Amino acid sequence: MAARIRGVLSPVVTPFKRDYAPDADRFIRHCKWLLSYGCAGLAIFGTNSEANSLSVEEKIDLLDRLLAAGVPAAKLMPGTGCSALPDSVKLTAHAVKVGCGGVLMLPPFYYKGVPDEGLFRNFAEVIQRVGDARLQLYLYHIPPVSQVPITLGLIERLLKAYPKSVAGLKDSSGDWSNTKTVLDNFAKSGFDVFPGSEVFLLDGLRNGGVGCITATGNVNPGPIDKVYQNWQSAQADQLQADITATRKVVQAVPMIPALKAIIAQFGADAGFVTVRPPLIELTADENAKLFAGLKTVHFTMPGLKEALSGLPV
Amino acid sequence: MAARIRGVLSPVVTPFKRDYAPDADRFIRHCKWLLSYGCAGLAIFGTNSEANSLSVEEKIDLLDRLLAAGVPAAKLMPGTGCSALPDSVKLTAHAVKVGCGGVLMLPPFYYKGVPDEGLFRNFAEVIQRVGDARLQLYLYHIPPVSQVPITLGLIERLLKAYPKSVAGLKDSSGDWSNTKTVLDNFAKSGFDVFPGSEVFLLDGLRNGGVGCITATGNVNPGPIDKVYQNWQSAQADQLQADITATRKVVQAVPMIPALKAIIAQFGADAGFVTVRPPLIELTADENAKLFAGLKTVHFTMPGLKEALSGLPV
Repeated sequence: MAARIRGVLSPVVTPFKRDYAPDADRFIRHCKWLLSYGCAGLAIFGTNSEANSLSVEEKIDLLDRLLAAGVPAAKLMPGTGCSALPDSVKLTAHAVKVGCGGVLMLPPFYYKGVPDEGLFRNFAEVIQRVGDARLQLYLYHIPPVSQVPITLGLIERLLKAYPKSVAGLKDSSGDWSNTKTVLDNFAKSGFDVFPGSEVFLLDGLRNGGVGCITATGNVNPGPIDKVYQNWQSAQADQLQADITATRKVVQAVPMIPALKAIIAQFGADAGFVTVRPPLIELTADENAKLFAGLKTVHFTMPGLKEALSGLPV
Repeated sequence: MAARIRGVLSPVVTPFKRDYAPDADRFIRHCKWLLSYGCAGLAIFGTNSEANSLSVEEKIDLLDRLLAAGVPAAKLMPGTGCSALPDSVKLTAHAVKVGCGGVLMLPPFYYKGVPDEGLFRNFAEVIQRVGDARLQLYLYHIPPVSQVPITLGLIERLLKAYPKSVAGLKDSSGDWSNTKTVLDNFAKSGFDVFPGSEVFLLDGLRNGGVGCITATGNVNPGPIDKVYQNWQSAQADQLQADITATRKVVQAVPMIPALKAIIAQFGADAGFVTVRPPLIELTADENAKLFAGLKTVHFTMPGLKEALSGLPV
């Protein structure tokens, strides 16, 4: 089996044209920049990718375009968990077929208060229908948005039933005590846990975690990777404090339009700011607050302007 | 313009085969039974239809099969609001093209805490891209499940921008004071308000409502329609009390599997019970509680056995 993806992953933002069509050229260039400047892998089609505002066909097309542009499939962990089971199966099967290193799966997220038995059946159906030994499935726990949690009992049951397919979990609960409990229960058995924010990167690594999958990875991949690379060094806590300070500036305004505004600004590419409904761009006040905040922390995006230069507006 | 759909609508449950494939034959027969026994219209692909567990292609196929079987398009109000804008556009455009009387649209439901401006853009994009004067769009307010509300301000803005397309709202908040406020603000201008439960049917009609769109319409359409037909009569309150009593029995256990269990039992069609993950069938205890409860109220399903007879198990 191929080596698992570990380290810093970015849930890559999805650029849109003015008519809200996905902008594959900007997407490819931003992905390549991320891989050159600190990301070990790309969790495309995550929450911060506006993935649930994209159709299955749009996601398959963007994935295929990315591979055609030379981005290695082994570094990709696309989000493939949809509200409808057949959509999750279709997207996951395609991702595995083209060789993606893993898939990050939301539970079905429309119906609330569903029992673990129903969620187990959902993941089990996907694994069985995809029916491919290469599948490396990472569970995606993000109750503040999905409102449907991945419980300890569900992880345990899935690991027992599908030990070779169930590879790990991204914990975007924002609740370190939950991450710690998951680490304590499952990390030793080879279950790869990624906190969903770099704020918990060092704590995670010190407790058996394998990296992080973080929105801010879109704009600050190098310094976050530096914590990952040097977590056992004497500077680790200071490096962590630096990336936490940057994170706090970014998350003080709506995250997804903030990431796009930062890329547009530091990449000198105004066309990057568009978000798809139901999201909206930052207001002028939010923009001012964001860029004033970034001046108070160590923040640069080396090479971004060059990566994005010459794109049509 | 064709007459608008008013009266009792059922968000029709979607039968599945054992392998979770949609069962079009059972679906068609149940739809025809509903139209013969009290439903003025069918809100197929609603929450209780497990619509968000179906792919766009599955929904289009079921709709086409229903029309091919002779169910009149004018009586259909399919749910067409998806998490992703292109899916909502595709499904809505198809529904309008085949002549559906209306569409019932959820807001995009993955991202939470989104601003009204983003929701306005979502609905506006759908209306403009569909670009068909026949579109009659009903907004679907169901915050307990979608977690994304349709506010008074959003209704007002959409009505102002698209007075000919925005036809009404289904209020599944379960909060009568919200329904009353919507009625007081918009009913007089021709905005058709349907409470999302027959518990509020009579109160709705007395305040300018035009019917109800209710899960229990799947199993109790006749008595609910009787309230609609006789709401100005002396027996209205007693008729309402009867249907409220039945509703309370059904909603005391998980609603969707309960509706399917009742249809399976009263239709002598065991194959009807299957639900798609993440839902699960009723437990034995829930089943016992449900059917014991139904014995305490006036409940029959005339003609259902005949309608469903001879289906393969």
